[in-house]
Amino acid sequence: MLIFDSERCDRTLFTGNAYNTGLVDADSVFTTAVGNVYFEPGARSNWHSHPAGQILIITDGVGYHQIEGRPVEIIKKGDVIKCPPNVRHWHGASADVGLQQLYIVPNTEKGIVNWNEAVTDKLYKSVQ
Amino acid sequence: MLIFDSERCDRTLFTGNAYNTGLVDADSVFTTAVGNVYFEPGARSNWHSHPAGQILIITDGVGYHQIEGRPVEIIKKGDVIKCPPNVRHWHGASADVGLQQLYIVPNTEKGIVNWNEAVTDKLYKSVQ
Repeated sequence: MLIFDSERCDRTLFTGNAYNTGLVDADSVFTTAVGNVYFEPGARSNWHSHPAGQILIITDGVGYHQIEGRPVEIIKKGDVIKCPPNVRHWHGASADVGLQQLYIVPNTEKGIVNWNEAVTDKLYKSVQ
Repeated sequence: MLIFDSERCDRTLFTGNAYNTGLVDADSVFTTAVGNVYFEPGARSNWHSHPAGQILIITDGVGYHQIEGRPVEIIKKGDVIKCPPNVRHWHGASADVGLQQLYIVPNTEKGIVNWNEAVTDKLYKSVQ
C-alpha cells in the first residue's frame, strides 16, 4: 500500500469510510487531477460521472466497479479501468477486503466530477 | 510493489535494467498515457522531454530525478513529481535501492516524449 496522508471522504458522497489524498491538483498546464483513495471493506462512492472520463489504477486489495447498465466488475490490484466521459459509474471496496486505487481525471478544463445518488445496499449486496 | 507484466526498456534509451508496463495507451478520448516502470539499482533513463509535461507517482523504493539546470532530487515511495512541458529531465533508481514509479503523460495530442543522450556515469555518481 502506498503511504499518503489522507482525509475522510465526504459522507454525503460516499457510503462507509473512504480516505482521499489529492496528489496532483488540476491546473492549466497539466489539466489533470490525480489522487489516491482507500476504501474500507463495504465502502463505495455514490454514482457519479466525469465530463472527460476517468482512469483508475488499482494498487491494493479487491473491489467493485460498475458502469451504469453493465454488470458489476470485480477489480483487484494491478487492474486498470477506463470510464468514458459523461457515463455514470461507481467504485469501492468489496464487502470483505478494502481497496486502494489511484484516480486520474484527464482534460479537467471540461470539468472533474458530477455527483449523483448513493449506491443502495440492495445493489451493493447483490454482487456475487 | 504493484504486479504487472513488463518488458525491458530499450537499452539505447536507458542505462542499466529498467522494465516498462504500458497501462493506458493514449487515444483521442483520454489523451493520456499511463505506465509503470521499475528501475533496478543504478538504472536510469536518458535525458528526455515531454511536449505536454509528465507526472510521476513514486510507488516503491528510492531514486533520483533531475530537471536540467537544477540539483538532483532524491525521490521515494509516496512522492509526486511534475516535470513541465518541453523541459529536459531524467529519472531512475538510486545506486543501492530500486525504484518503481507510475508515469502519466497528459495531453498526448501534443506528443509523448522526445529522447536525448544518456546520463553519464560522472553525473549519476555525483549524487550524494
